[in-house]
Amino acid sequence: MSQQVTNVDKGTITSPKGFQAGATFVGMKSFAEDKYDLGLLYSANPCTAAGTFTLNEVRSFSVRVTEDNVRKGNMRAVVANSGVANAVVGDQGRKDALEVARLAAQQLGLQPDQLGVLSTGLIGVELPMAVIRAGIPKIKLTGAGGRQFARAIMTTDTAPKETAVAYQSGGRTVTIGGVAKGSGMIHPNMATMLAVLTTDALVDAAFLRGALKRSVDRSFNMISVDGDTSTNDTALLLANGAAGGPAVAAGSPEAALFQEGLDEVCMYLAKAIVRDGEGASKIFEVRIEGARNEAEARKAARTITDSNLVRTAVHGNDPNWGRIVAALGRSGAHVEESKLSLYINGVCIMEGGLPIPFFKDAVVQQMRQPEVSFRVSLGLGDGAATAWGCNLSEAYVTFNSAYTT
Amino acid sequence: MSQQVTNVDKGTITSPKGFQAGATFVGMKSFAEDKYDLGLLYSANPCTAAGTFTLNEVRSFSVRVTEDNVRKGNMRAVVANSGVANAVVGDQGRKDALEVARLAAQQLGLQPDQLGVLSTGLIGVELPMAVIRAGIPKIKLTGAGGRQFARAIMTTDTAPKETAVAYQSGGRTVTIGGVAKGSGMIHPNMATMLAVLTTDALVDAAFLRGALKRSVDRSFNMISVDGDTSTNDTALLLANGAAGGPAVAAGSPEAALFQEGLDEVCMYLAKAIVRDGEGASKIFEVRIEGARNEAEARKAARTITDSNLVRTAVHGNDPNWGRIVAALGRSGAHVEESKLSLYINGVCIMEGGLPIPFFKDAVVQQMRQPEVSFRVSLGLGDGAATAWGCNLSEAYVTFNSAYTT
Repeated sequence: MSQQVTNVDKGTITSPKGFQAGATFVGMKSFAEDKYDLGLLYSANPCTAAGTFTLNEVRSFSVRVTEDNVRKGNMRAVVANSGVANAVVGDQGRKDALEVARLAAQQLGLQPDQLGVLSTGLIGVELPMAVIRAGIPKIKLTGAGGRQFARAIMTTDTAPKETAVAYQSGGRTVTIGGVAKGSGMIHPNMATMLAVLTTDALVDAAFLRGALKRSVDRSFNMISVDGDTSTNDTALLLANGAAGGPAVAAGSPEAALFQEGLDEVCMYLAKAIVRDGEGASKIFEVRIEGARNEAEARKAARTITDSNLVRTAVHGNDPNWGRIVAALGRSGAHVEESKLSLYINGVCIMEGGLPIPFFKDAVVQQMRQPEVSFRVSLGLGDGAATAWGCNLSEAYVTFNSAYTT
Repeated sequence: MSQQVTNVDKGTITSPKGFQAGATFVGMKSFAEDKYDLGLLYSANPCTAAGTFTLNEVRSFSVRVTEDNVRKGNMRAVVANSGVANAVVGDQGRKDALEVARLAAQQLGLQPDQLGVLSTGLIGVELPMAVIRAGIPKIKLTGAGGRQFARAIMTTDTAPKETAVAYQSGGRTVTIGGVAKGSGMIHPNMATMLAVLTTDALVDAAFLRGALKRSVDRSFNMISVDGDTSTNDTALLLANGAAGGPAVAAGSPEAALFQEGLDEVCMYLAKAIVRDGEGASKIFEVRIEGARNEAEARKAARTITDSNLVRTAVHGNDPNWGRIVAALGRSGAHVEESKLSLYINGVCIMEGGLPIPFFKDAVVQQMRQPEVSFRVSLGLGDGAATAWGCNLSEAYVTFNSAYTT
C-alpha cells in the first residue's frame, strides 16, 4: 500500500459517508452459527454503480435481476440473503427475486430497479418468501450496520470479511469499504462469492465499471478454493459521491489513487476468502514472472493454485516442486524448461531448468508458515501475475462429503 | 461388447502372437511393494506403431525419444522403468533416454530408434544408469512376460492393469492386448499414465494412428483422478501382423472390428486406472446427452468428473445435484436450464430444469454402490460423451500430503 492509502480502523461498507445498513434473522440459514441471514444496504444519495457477475451458464435469478438493475444505472441499495441461492428453481426464482427487490424498495422508499439482489446458499431451494416478507420491515438501518450486513451474507464462512481504506484528495477524505463472503466453490471466474463495495467518492460511471473490472481481475479472479464456480457470484460497487469534489474519471488526478484504494479493498477481501476456504489452514501465493505475456502468466498462476497435487503438497509442507512444474507445463503458458527458475519462500529450488540441491528440512520449516509463497520465473518475457490458493486438507473432504446429508 | 469381440482369459500384452516381454528389479523404485521396476517388450516381427503423448509443455526426454522413434516408423520394442520419471533433469535426461534405448537395442539385436522408452516416477531425479546398465541384460523375455512388464510400470498403483480381447476374421484369430499404469496425476489430457497396447493384426500405419487416437479420445482422455496432467504420459500401440491376413486399413472389412476391440481394451484400462485412483474407493460415470455437439458434451462430462465438490459428494454418497449443475454450467457447454434433466443411477432427480422431489434415502443407498452413474440430458442437440471419475477421499489428501517427505 502506498502511504497515500491508509486502512480505516474496523472498516466496513458503512465506513464511507452516506451509507447505512442493517440485518435480521428470518430463519432461512441453518448451517451457520451466526444469526443474520437477511441484510439491507442503503445510500442516502444517488449512486453510480458497477457489477461483475458469474460466468456460469446456470445463474440464479437474483444475479439476473441485479445485472439488469446495474445496467439501468439507478442503483442505490442492496438486499442480500444467505441460506438459499434462489438458483435452479424454475420461473419461481424470477418472481421471487423481483418480489424481494420490490419489498426492499418499499421499505426504503425506492423503486424496485434501484435494488441489487444477492442470494447465496443451497441450490434448488425456493426463497422462503413468507418469512422474507415479514423480515424486511424489521431491519434497522444504521451507520454502523455494515458489520451486520457482513454477517448476513456468510454461509460456511467462519468469520465475517470486511475492510475499508481512505485517502485524501483536495482536502477531502475519500473512503472505500467492502464486505465479502466465501468459502466453498471459490474459483477464478467469480465463485460462490459475494462482494459488496461502497465508496463516498463521486465517480464517473464508465470509469467505475473499468475500475471494478481491473480490481476484480487482480483479486477475486485470482483466487481458488476448490476450482468450482457458482451460480450466484456477484461483486457490486456503489459510489455515492457523499465525499464531494469533482468526479473521478479516466485521466483525472484522483483516478490512480481511487484504483489503488479499490485494489487494496478487493485484494484484502479475496485473500480473506482464501484464508477462510473450507477446511483450509494456510494460504499460498503463486507469483509468475517472465511469461510471454500477462494472459499466460495469469493462466499459469491460476493452474498452479488450482492443482490438487500442489494443494496437498502445501498441506503436507512438502517442497514437491515437481508438481508445481507439472501444473505449470499443462497450464497453457509457454514454458522453456532450460529457462525456468523456482523459489519457495525466497529459497531457490530450481534454476535454469535444473533442481538445486536445497536443504530440505529448512524449506519444510519455511512451508510450515501460515503463508507460503512460490515464485516462478519463466525467463521469456514481461508477463507477470499473482494468484492465491489454500491447502487441500482432509477436513475439506470431510466437510464437503456431508454437506446436505 | 459385441458378440464378435471376446475377452481373453488372463490377457496381457504378450497374448497377441509374436510378442515377448520380461522385467527385473534394479532398485530404482522404493515406494511400491512390487519388485519389478525395469521391463522390456519385444516383437519378433516388424511392426507398425502409433503413439499419443502428453500435452504438458514440460516433457520427459523419454517421451521425446519415443515420439521421435514412433515417427521414424520402425518401432519393434519398448523399454520401460518406474520410480524415476527422467523429467526436469536438464540435458542429462536426453543422454540417459538415448542410452537406455541403445542398451535395450543391443540386448535385443535391434537399432536404438526401434525402441520406445517409457519412464514414470519422481520428477527431478536422474535415471540411475549404472543399475540400468547392469539390469537390462538380466531381463528374460518369455511369451508370458506381459504380466511382469505390467508390474514393472506400476508406481502408486495397488494392482497391475492388463487385459486382452480377440476376434475372428477370415478364419484367423486376432488378439489385442494392453497394460497401463495410473494412479495419481490422471487427467483428460493423458496424465501420469502409461499404456502399452499390442496386436498381432496386420494394420496399415495411417489407420493405426487414427484408430489409436479415436480409442484414446474415448477412454484415457475421458478419465480424471485428480485433474493434473503429467510430464510423461504415453500410449503406445504396436501391430506386428503375426496373425496374418490382409492389412486392416480404412474401409477394410476388419476395420470396425479392430476399432471395437481396441476401444474395449483402452476403456477397460482407463476404468481400471480410475478405480485404482489414489485414495479412491469408487468410480462414477458421467454421461452427457443432448449437448449441442460432441465437443461440448465432452467438456461437460470432463468438468463434472473433475469437480472436487462433485467428487466429495460421491465420496459421501450425497445426491447433491446442485454441484453437478454448477459444474455443468461452468464447463463451457451451452445450457438451457429449463431443458435440463438429471438421473442418478437411473433415478430422475431433475426434469425440465426443476428438482423432482425424490426419495433421498433410496438415492443415497444407490450411491453407496461402488459404481455410480450420473446421466445429464441437455435437450439441445445430438452431442453425447461419457467420462469417468473417482471419489475424492480423505485418504487421497493424506497420501499426497506425504509423498516425498
